[in-house]
Amino acid sequence: MMGYSNELRSQILIEALPYIQKYNGKIVVIKYGGHAMTDDTLKRSVMGDIVLLSLVGMKVVLVHGGGPEITEMLMRLGKKSEFIDGLRVTDKETAEIVQMVLCGKVNKDLVKYIDGIGGKAVGLSGIDNRLLEAKMLDEQLGYVGDITCVNPQPITDLLDRGYIPVISTVACDGEGNVYNVNADIAAARIAEVLQAESFISMTDTRGILREKEDDNTLISEIRVDQADELIQTGVISGGMIPKVESCLASVRRGVNRVFVIDGRVEHALLIEMLTDSGVGTMFTN
Amino acid sequence: MMGYSNELRSQILIEALPYIQKYNGKIVVIKYGGHAMTDDTLKRSVMGDIVLLSLVGMKVVLVHGGGPEITEMLMRLGKKSEFIDGLRVTDKETAEIVQMVLCGKVNKDLVKYIDGIGGKAVGLSGIDNRLLEAKMLDEQLGYVGDITCVNPQPITDLLDRGYIPVISTVACDGEGNVYNVNADIAAARIAEVLQAESFISMTDTRGILREKEDDNTLISEIRVDQADELIQTGVISGGMIPKVESCLASVRRGVNRVFVIDGRVEHALLIEMLTDSGVGTMFTN
Amino acid sequence: MMGYSNELRSQILIEALPYIQKYNGKIVVIKYGGHAMTDDTLKRSVMGDIVLLSLVGMKVVLVHGGGPEITEMLMRLGKKSEFIDGLRVTDKETAEIVQMVLCGKVNKDLVKYIDGIGGKAVGLSGIDNRLLEAKMLDEQLGYVGDITCVNPQPITDLLDRGYIPVISTVACDGEGNVYNVNADIAAARIAEVLQAESFISMTDTRGILREKEDDNTLISEIRVDQADELIQTGVISGGMIPKVESCLASVRRGVNRVFVIDGRVEHALLIEMLTDSGVGTMFTN
Amino acid sequence: MMGYSNELRSQILIEALPYIQKYNGKIVVIKYGGHAMTDDTLKRSVMGDIVLLSLVGMKVVLVHGGGPEITEMLMRLGKKSEFIDGLRVTDKETAEIVQMVLCGKVNKDLVKYIDGIGGKAVGLSGIDNRLLEAKMLDEQLGYVGDITCVNPQPITDLLDRGYIPVISTVACDGEGNVYNVNADIAAARIAEVLQAESFISMTDTRGILREKEDDNTLISEIRVDQADELIQTGVISGGMIPKVESCLASVRRGVNRVFVIDGRVEHALLIEMLTDSGVGTMFTN
Amino acid sequence: MMGYSNELRSQILIEALPYIQKYNGKIVVIKYGGHAMTDDTLKRSVMGDIVLLSLVGMKVVLVHGGGPEITEMLMRLGKKSEFIDGLRVTDKETAEIVQMVLCGKVNKDLVKYIDGIGGKAVGLSGIDNRLLEAKMLDEQLGYVGDITCVNPQPITDLLDRGYIPVISTVACDGEGNVYNVNADIAAARIAEVLQAESFISMTDTRGILREKEDDNTLISEIRVDQADELIQTGVISGGMIPKVESCLASVRRGVNRVFVIDGRVEHALLIEMLTDSGVGTMFTN
Amino acid sequence: MMGYSNELRSQILIEALPYIQKYNGKIVVIKYGGHAMTDDTLKRSVMGDIVLLSLVGMKVVLVHGGGPEITEMLMRLGKKSEFIDGLRVTDKETAEIVQMVLCGKVNKDLVKYIDGIGGKAVGLSGIDNRLLEAKMLDEQLGYVGDITCVNPQPITDLLDRGYIPVISTVACDGEGNVYNVNADIAAARIAEVLQAESFISMTDTRGILREKEDDNTLISEIRVDQADELIQTGVISGGMIPKVESCLASVRRGVNRVFVIDGRVEHALLIEMLTDSGVGTMFTN
Repeated sequence: MMGYSNELRSQILIEALPYIQKYNGKIVVIKYGGHAMTDDTLKRSVMGDIVLLSLVGMKVVLVHGGGPEITEMLMRLGKKSEFIDGLRVTDKETAEIVQMVLCGKVNKDLVKYIDGIGGKAVGLSGIDNRLLEAKMLDEQLGYVGDITCVNPQPITDLLDRGYIPVISTVACDGEGNVYNVNADIAAARIAEVLQAESFISMTDTRGILREKEDDNTLISEIRVDQADELIQTGVISGGMIPKVESCLASVRRGVNRVFVIDGRVEHALLIEMLTDSGVGTMFTN
Repeated sequence: MMGYSNELRSQILIEALPYIQKYNGKIVVIKYGGHAMTDDTLKRSVMGDIVLLSLVGMKVVLVHGGGPEITEMLMRLGKKSEFIDGLRVTDKETAEIVQMVLCGKVNKDLVKYIDGIGGKAVGLSGIDNRLLEAKMLDEQLGYVGDITCVNPQPITDLLDRGYIPVISTVACDGEGNVYNVNADIAAARIAEVLQAESFISMTDTRGILREKEDDNTLISEIRVDQADELIQTGVISGGMIPKVESCLASVRRGVNRVFVIDGRVEHALLIEMLTDSGVGTMFTN
Repeated sequence: MMGYSNELRSQILIEALPYIQKYNGKIVVIKYGGHAMTDDTLKRSVMGDIVLLSLVGMKVVLVHGGGPEITEMLMRLGKKSEFIDGLRVTDKETAEIVQMVLCGKVNKDLVKYIDGIGGKAVGLSGIDNRLLEAKMLDEQLGYVGDITCVNPQPITDLLDRGYIPVISTVACDGEGNVYNVNADIAAARIAEVLQAESFISMTDTRGILREKEDDNTLISEIRVDQADELIQTGVISGGMIPKVESCLASVRRGVNRVFVIDGRVEHALLIEMLTDSGVGTMFTN
Repeated sequence: MMGYSNELRSQILIEALPYIQKYNGKIVVIKYGGHAMTDDTLKRSVMGDIVLLSLVGMKVVLVHGGGPEITEMLMRLGKKSEFIDGLRVTDKETAEIVQMVLCGKVNKDLVKYIDGIGGKAVGLSGIDNRLLEAKMLDEQLGYVGDITCVNPQPITDLLDRGYIPVISTVACDGEGNVYNVNADIAAARIAEVLQAESFISMTDTRGILREKEDDNTLISEIRVDQADELIQTGVISGGMIPKVESCLASVRRGVNRVFVIDGRVEHALLIEMLTDSGVGTMFTN
Repeated sequence: MMGYSNELRSQILIEALPYIQKYNGKIVVIKYGGHAMTDDTLKRSVMGDIVLLSLVGMKVVLVHGGGPEITEMLMRLGKKSEFIDGLRVTDKETAEIVQMVLCGKVNKDLVKYIDGIGGKAVGLSGIDNRLLEAKMLDEQLGYVGDITCVNPQPITDLLDRGYIPVISTVACDGEGNVYNVNADIAAARIAEVLQAESFISMTDTRGILREKEDDNTLISEIRVDQADELIQTGVISGGMIPKVESCLASVRRGVNRVFVIDGRVEHALLIEMLTDSGVGTMFTN
Repeated sequence: MMGYSNELRSQILIEALPYIQKYNGKIVVIKYGGHAMTDDTLKRSVMGDIVLLSLVGMKVVLVHGGGPEITEMLMRLGKKSEFIDGLRVTDKETAEIVQMVLCGKVNKDLVKYIDGIGGKAVGLSGIDNRLLEAKMLDEQLGYVGDITCVNPQPITDLLDRGYIPVISTVACDGEGNVYNVNADIAAARIAEVLQAESFISMTDTRGILREKEDDNTLISEIRVDQADELIQTGVISGGMIPKVESCLASVRRGVNRVFVIDGRVEHALLIEMLTDSGVGTMFTN
């Protein structure tokens, strides 16, 4: 803790005051993924941000996927993956491996990290108390799930007792099948059901860019009625489509502030929540 | 639901009344393992018992290990295990696989099972909110943990809200290391810290037998002061030693009723808790 | 507790599981009367059933009349009873004797019985905290009451603290008069006001029979719109009319499950609530 | 409400202020009996006092016997009573009649009275939730009870919800027997177990008189160590002995203020609690 | 406490019973001012009344102004006051003095008085937690406030914990300005927002008089639709106009009982609340 | 909010994390006075600090005196002050002016300031619910109070509901007298009774200096057993003596962290609580 003067420290802390006041006691759902999850420096910065936001009075819910670690484990186990339209065909054994890696490796590593820096995290998954129920999206894809129901009870029970719930995005159905579900969609649905104040989705881009390769073409705000055009003109494409669509659904169903932020920026969460600098694209009604 | 007459059904239900009254609102910690975990019929019967005991007013905590599934996954991943005195030498990668299999596969499968038959289960592990802290037991063994601290808060928070906590027995330390811990010892320690009314450990034997191969030599009760002799004379040996020692420690530290029961018997939990037939060995002060 | 095998016991207990789940935390109002109240074996079986249902999580409210004991006391005190259309003409002194016998003898004997087998019963009457208010039904009949108001507060206060309320069906008015009220009607009104899940009325018949003397002609379900015809054709007659009408009123005003069961069958309550065997007639919307 | 001037009314109300402050939120156990129970004017005055004390913030518990009404009912039913040392020999049938009259007639009449003037009374007896447990005092006397245990739970549960508990002094045992117990002793024991601030016993004398027939010889205060002499010298005799002894026991076990007051004086309770005029004998440590 | 007989005392106390029952747990807002505030005997009587009403279960809120003490302090500090239409022109310094005198002198003296006779008072002002927000009524008048918002939270928080809130009628705005607000209007607005049962305004007249100098012409009840005429004909005039108008506004917005009472009468509050003698004018819908 | 980069902002915020964790939910009593109260920039900085500390989870209690404003008002009102040993001789009129200025001017200005920047402040004084009781310290000094009792109830009631209590240090006695009490001593006593985690006293020096004029001689820690010598050698003298003695008393009676900080430094509170830079002298056991 060297270098900065007390004047500077106190000045910057005091400037965070209005933001802390604004979000005090409010629910913030964070979809965590991408580089922010694989790069150690970024991971440390995100985990610190989450504990700090939690301590200054926000009710933080962390939702994660874990694509790279699933892929790695499938490879180690000699499972080959087939893809249809960018979605992994998920047979029963793959679904079991997804469950194991997300709930047993990724989730617990995050929980351990947060607890290690003084947070109070407890891991959940779509399986616990049937938090996420799903049905098959498309028979060809196997156990890829379409979320049918979100049970907020275990999340709010943990928030009420002061925990930070960390949620793995697998879902289940009444027959005991497990489904791999898109983490962006799951996080957005959770934000809706909790009627969160904010839903923040971390990506590996600067936000939504008008020209994909040019960070200077960031679109800082997208209205619900502008989205279709942006998809048709290809500005929004590929994996960004479900992300944007779930963001827009959240906006429509009452989540107050919804945005994608650049997860490659250290402390992007703090900057977004506790300063007046936006670091991504906001979705509005 | 065929066959039995209403007279018989009601007669048997009514005979369970005094047992239900006795354990109403009390904490029961169950160490689940062995055949009861690998045999589908037994698994179904244990899960049903747990939901029923929970519904008739007991606060059930389920603690599990998962040796066979860990071994299978290590094999599939090409990790060879070395053993010293029957304990698996656990390098960092092995510890990670243990965590992944217990928390992500075994735990969530149990949670899913319980929820599937109408229970309200949430999975926990020694990592969540630092439920179990450990230090290295012996450097030669690597990440085999000696439990140093049990944090009952997340367990009681879930019990208070009506959930059945299902706990994976991995532990962590302040540096973020993960340890494989003996599930019998962990369960006994959890029972102590919760000051449980009952601690039941499921085994694959009839209980403690004076002659190992002869079920007719079951010792139905062992006093704390008789245990040493039984160990020295070899009546209690091998993996049964830590099991018995942790049971005796629980008795000494105030758990009211402690016993090992025969997990190979269908509905052994119901029989033990809701009838006057003992199905194993009880440890007393 | 002789005879039955552990296998049988556990099998039957586990088969009760879905029923226990279904009624957990729900209010069940039971109108107790007839043979079930005068026959010692039946009484023991009903009281046991009530304590068991209470322990497995139902909120049981017991409502009772006490015709035979009233008649006996009136005879011992030399009061002759006149009847008009089957209703006892109730002068002030008779009303006082009804109050005394119901609240002081029948009620306390039931409370004592329940407490004696480990239940937590507290007696109430329509007089306590003005639980039941009534006005005169017909001047010719004297103090026979027509219920004008039900105050659920003392019942829910006792349920909230875990008691089984046992309620005598006398009512009062603002001038301090006491009324004898029909126990079936009172129980149905209490079930309505509490918005009970189930209202069960115990009778001395197999249920509603198409041919009065032939148990094989049991009508297992009567819809609200079928009742009039059954009354006009004489299938439902005599004392069964107010019983059926109050059951139908309960159905119309939102009590979920309403039925008359055969109180002459041991453990009829358990059989009705915890098995899939119906033992009487159900009323539906 | 004629006659008195506003000045007078307000003056007297305001003078009650320090007494109301003193007893606010405190438990007051009142043993009700004698003329105050049989004379209509006195009864109305006592009931009004109780509701008023309750409204100005005291937690009032009313305990009653009912000798005259028991005697009358026994006579009407042709039961002859034998007495040994002034205690009624109580066979099983007599005990049942005592229960019926106290719980069904006297208790409910009091409850009705209190509710009728706007109070919130609920009746209890020693049978409800086993409030009073007893064993046989003397085999010769039959079911005359010696109190072995007082369960304050149903009383405090009702007080917490704002009710005035009205308690009939019959007791029960584990075998379902009912006992007639001395109401003075029962009330004193209840006051002790509740750790009441005040215990007031209503009598038909001016208090303890040095000369029985001379009201001017009132002893206004008796210390615990003076009582023996007063009994030996016959100043305290007959039915006054158990009354005095139970008062003294209350004082010794921590009830703050204990006294007998003259129940023949209208509003004796108000005068005792809300003015500085004592109207009886106080027992002190 | 001499003079009055016990009979008289108890008679008068018992006659207060129905009134105490009626207002038990209800909110009563009292606007205190005039002679009742400056005359020591009257002040003592009002403070006693408030503590007594509070103890017998009413939730009393005391709202005060303090014109004479403000005038005196302004004079001592050499500030001259200009008046426009009877309203004091209030410059910034005057507003500061008003705040200081009301919150620091008048309020704390009242709090001290109430606490001194055993009440539990805490002082508040329109400044605390922004209880009263205002804007300028008329630029010519300076910091005379027009109430724009009432925040009941600090009042109900104190009532919930058993305190008597004593409120100074200064208000604030978002820029940190302080306003002098009319105490009658402020009290009426507070009564509305709290949905008080009663709002009582103390004046220095017998009530609303048809002939100003003749107490015998008291109008005991004024309907909302009669007020305009009374103002136009000059029956209601001067400082009585805002008082009456705020009373009428309270009636319209749901305060149940609203009246002005004669603060020159000792114990006018007790007489109004606990007897059937009205001592002023009631406003009705 | 110009100038600072997002990197810098987030870096500094994240470095505050361990301090926020440490004091989360803890009570911090702040004695506010000196330049920090009279200089506008410092005042703004202190008020901001208090709101920020409150929002990040500390329970802040603000205690203030107000010497300069009292002196100014006494002068304006033509009261001359005599001093004995540096203490103002306080006649009854002076005590009244002290009360008025502290409770009505200083207190409400602070409350208004805090509310204005989004805090939730409510003013209290030693008079409200008899928070501070005192007796005369020395007859010669008149109404200078020696604190005899601290009632923490109104403070904890407000903290429980999320308010920042702002407390004026006047005290009262049972006869209605008001006393001027030393604000440092009062604050220390309040910290003791609340068993605060931290007690911070703001001064106009760098802390305790070995050489009064040389800021470089700051004593950063004083043990309880070192204080006497420092007083005898004159290092601690004048108005610093009661300040130091009350700090030491707090340390002895269980307040964890006690220190004097330099109120002339902007954001001294934030620096002290949320960085590892000490800005004054700490007192230790």
